[in-house]
Amino acid sequence: MAVYTEVSDEDLQAFAAAYDFGEVVSCKGIAEGVENSNYMLQTAKGPFILTLYEKRVNPKELPFFLGLMEHLAAAGVRCPVPLKGRDGQALRTLCDKPAAIVSFLNGISPRRTTADHCAELGKALAELHQAGMSYRVKRANSLSLAGWKELYAKSADSAESIETGLRARLAEELDDLSQAWPATDALPNGVIHADLFPDNVFFRDGKCSGLIDFYFACNDFLAYDIVVCLNAWCFEADGAFNITKANRLLSSYQTVRRLTPAEKLAMPLLARGAALRFLLTRLYDWVNTPAGALVKPKDPREYLHKLNFHRRVTDIGAYGLS
Amino acid sequence: MAVYTEVSDEDLQAFAAAYDFGEVVSCKGIAEGVENSNYMLQTAKGPFILTLYEKRVNPKELPFFLGLMEHLAAAGVRCPVPLKGRDGQALRTLCDKPAAIVSFLNGISPRRTTADHCAELGKALAELHQAGMSYRVKRANSLSLAGWKELYAKSADSAESIETGLRARLAEELDDLSQAWPATDALPNGVIHADLFPDNVFFRDGKCSGLIDFYFACNDFLAYDIVVCLNAWCFEADGAFNITKANRLLSSYQTVRRLTPAEKLAMPLLARGAALRFLLTRLYDWVNTPAGALVKPKDPREYLHKLNFHRRVTDIGAYGLS
Repeated sequence: MAVYTEVSDEDLQAFAAAYDFGEVVSCKGIAEGVENSNYMLQTAKGPFILTLYEKRVNPKELPFFLGLMEHLAAAGVRCPVPLKGRDGQALRTLCDKPAAIVSFLNGISPRRTTADHCAELGKALAELHQAGMSYRVKRANSLSLAGWKELYAKSADSAESIETGLRARLAEELDDLSQAWPATDALPNGVIHADLFPDNVFFRDGKCSGLIDFYFACNDFLAYDIVVCLNAWCFEADGAFNITKANRLLSSYQTVRRLTPAEKLAMPLLARGAALRFLLTRLYDWVNTPAGALVKPKDPREYLHKLNFHRRVTDIGAYGLS
Repeated sequence: MAVYTEVSDEDLQAFAAAYDFGEVVSCKGIAEGVENSNYMLQTAKGPFILTLYEKRVNPKELPFFLGLMEHLAAAGVRCPVPLKGRDGQALRTLCDKPAAIVSFLNGISPRRTTADHCAELGKALAELHQAGMSYRVKRANSLSLAGWKELYAKSADSAESIETGLRARLAEELDDLSQAWPATDALPNGVIHADLFPDNVFFRDGKCSGLIDFYFACNDFLAYDIVVCLNAWCFEADGAFNITKANRLLSSYQTVRRLTPAEKLAMPLLARGAALRFLLTRLYDWVNTPAGALVKPKDPREYLHKLNFHRRVTDIGAYGLS
């Protein structure tokens, strides 16, 4: 949850005057997204979401993200659509920060994921991948191998304070992955969400009703996006991997897009990479979040456990696929 | 801002089934209120606010608060109205906590208060006091003299760490106020809001559109409620008292209810009490809020400054009234 920037009513009304939805009758800071400030606006034309982009988002990349949401929505993906002001612009400035208003999506994120959720997720993810194929703007994944090495360099000293041996363990893993990570053209590539945690997926009546928070989206291996989801959706609170959930996620994904043999083969390695990515960012946040910050950092060890799990996986059977 | 309790979608839908608004299509934790968890619900019948009462609210007192909002709304005060389920109950349980759904109020809280806001506030406050006269349920103010003494006993040791001499200053002030505080029947009494900070007052097009957060409401001197507002609305960010704002607040209040000579005479003393009340609760929170808590405690010294200001006031002319 995060509301970092307090918007005055005068600033808000001046900002809103650029749009066609009439008076903003209410504006509430909402506990959504960790990186940006989000507000729910009530207007004569219904609810909208106002986002102020805080320091972790590079303003130069915003056209990629906003353009992507517009592209995906036009292709039928249920995601927030950037709203354009009367001047045709979606991206403007509020309180000296980049800001945009997007459409409001109905639906509720699951607190406890079920196998049925995973099946819905798999299909939605594959549809997102298909729809992203025709998006021509590119953005490299800043949180792949090179990014992991930077994070490691910044956080390695503190890793030992979290768990003895963690520093060496991370170095070893980075080494292994550097050697084995597939070449860019070795696996199907495209636009990935890269952060499709349950918080970012809405459901209504058990059906996926929308995907949000595209601010890590980038071009990378499509299968990497899948294993980010395996990590985020298919482990139970006690750390056990739920093979039924994984099977439902992967099978359902394949009803839209078949995985290639190379993708299946690479999946355990990609899953280690995906686990390492969140382990490293959580480690960085754990160490660098000041006491009293509004966002509580998440325990990095959850992802160390997931990393260890995937290291022991020898083939995709462990994920419920034959 | 506060969202303490995470409500699962299953729990939410089961809870919502007791009401007549159909499916809950969205539920967002909102940054409103410091004491409770608040969610904005979108339903087929429009938006509502769901509140889970956290530990600072005594469950036994909830019928007073909910009944008061219902009473005030029926008397024309724009405030949240508790929604009753099909069983006629407004107060029920969610995630093992007392919970209620109230109507949604349009409007936006001012970040920067103006003299016009203060005039609107004065009128709304007087109307609240008038409407409260016929509410028959009673609740003593737990944050008056006796409550201040308890807070002092718990926080005095830490006061010195905030400002040298603060401990003795608080003791002296408590002593003075204990001696001089008016007897219950010495001044007009009634239901007061007791926490009418700008966060709790909504405006639309410059007009007051609603009052929220009645969870400190109680029976006390009506004039005490006014000086809580003087403290919260009429000091500038640099600490200067804005006599124009105070004049507009008090004059506008008096268009609805005239202040008695005794109230005018008591006001500087009451204002010291109101300043001490927030100084003590902020001091307590400052000392007792764990590092990493979701709510940042507010600096108690702001209220020490206000206390000192009122100590120097000799008559109500300092507040812009003759």
